[in-house]
Amino acid sequence: MLTRLRTVLIGTSHAGNIGGVARAMHNMGLDDLALVAPRSSVIHQDSISRASGADHLLHSARISPTLDDAVADCTFVVGASARSRTLPWPMLSPRALAARLPEETRQPNARVALVFGREDSGLTNDELQRCHAHVHIPTNPDFSSLNLAAAVQVVAYECRTAWLERQATPADDGSADDAGLATHADLERYFAHLEQTLTAVGFHDPDKPRQLMARLRRLYLRARLEPLEINILRGILTATDKASRPPRS
Amino acid sequence: MLTRLRTVLIGTSHAGNIGGVARAMHNMGLDDLALVAPRSSVIHQDSISRASGADHLLHSARISPTLDDAVADCTFVVGASARSRTLPWPMLSPRALAARLPEETRQPNARVALVFGREDSGLTNDELQRCHAHVHIPTNPDFSSLNLAAAVQVVAYECRTAWLERQATPADDGSADDAGLATHADLERYFAHLEQTLTAVGFHDPDKPRQLMARLRRLYLRARLEPLEINILRGILTATDKASRPPRS
Repeated sequence: MLTRLRTVLIGTSHAGNIGGVARAMHNMGLDDLALVAPRSSVIHQDSISRASGADHLLHSARISPTLDDAVADCTFVVGASARSRTLPWPMLSPRALAARLPEETRQPNARVALVFGREDSGLTNDELQRCHAHVHIPTNPDFSSLNLAAAVQVVAYECRTAWLERQATPADDGSADDAGLATHADLERYFAHLEQTLTAVGFHDPDKPRQLMARLRRLYLRARLEPLEINILRGILTATDKASRPPRS
Repeated sequence: MLTRLRTVLIGTSHAGNIGGVARAMHNMGLDDLALVAPRSSVIHQDSISRASGADHLLHSARISPTLDDAVADCTFVVGASARSRTLPWPMLSPRALAARLPEETRQPNARVALVFGREDSGLTNDELQRCHAHVHIPTNPDFSSLNLAAAVQVVAYECRTAWLERQATPADDGSADDAGLATHADLERYFAHLEQTLTAVGFHDPDKPRQLMARLRRLYLRARLEPLEINILRGILTATDKASRPPRS
């Protein structure tokens, strides 16, 4: 289960924090680190010092230009967030997230991304809306900004605790007819196609979005689509595209 | 409940870690910090930087020469520990510790100490044997040494989570006839008296201790003595002392 968890840091500005995250991850048995557009060096004396022996995670970390790239193969994407923004999104406590992991990591292609934002500003609304769910660490309302490595520590600790509890209970082998879940890349291709189609048909105006795409994302992400369902939905869009094209004159 | 928790750091050698601990504590609503014989400056640019706005905890921290002094008024003392040492001691997970806190903080004079050791060597056996229980954070067995602030973060997070759950359930006002619990200072005075008496009566040889005092500590700490009981036990020792003095010639 723990090997299916990827920790994704977006736009980290302090090398020391990347090292602190690596240490926190490895302490809890999480070893897959991905960095999206880091604003600091990854291999740096501060990161190596704070990693305190876990610097192999820094060397093996994948660096991606975008969140989409970093989580393309993931089937469940969770973003760390302060309290909900403009549009409410499924919100989990770290414990509730961890409790879902045995199920979320059961499918053969399952991979879970735990996404953490910038030290100064967290995740953007656009990034948050690419997530199936958000995780909020309960904090003192008067002093709520956790250090990045501390936030990873809490979430990773809950993941490890759930994993240990799982070890202590009889295994659930899963049923053989699981169809797997759609990956992030599948979903994003679908959302891009959907927006294009909705614009083409005049239902959606990208200049006056009125949160339409956000609401649709929330709906479909909540539904946990299977690959076959994505194919069906995209088939519908393709059919709509064809049907809505102005007839050739 | 959270206001009755004191975080105690022994022999911390990096100012930055003290600041990181202050931030982790304040994020979780814990504000009582005590430092025992710190090996670094407490007010230092590294500690203030890592505290990231929680530096008032550094200014209000009490600095003590010994653990006994720092936890003298505490009724429940828990030490962070790797796996058990020579003598097994009551061992709690962070979650099990947190689950006990509503009860442990119920008495009018209740105060709980969460004790964390040196970055390089943790708590000594002598310090661990001054604790009612030990708390062990589950870690990757191949990479088990947590950063000090990360360890405090995990324990403080569990405390806050237990407190939040407590807020959501009907309050237990406690019974009016609670007698309170013996403080650490009461207990240590008793243990000192006990060792002296046992030596005097020839049952204990401080040069060949054979873990006798450790085993007795474990027994009495587990029993959660009340003040009246301490008085009785010390009365027994005083009576024994008198009875075992060589008769005046």
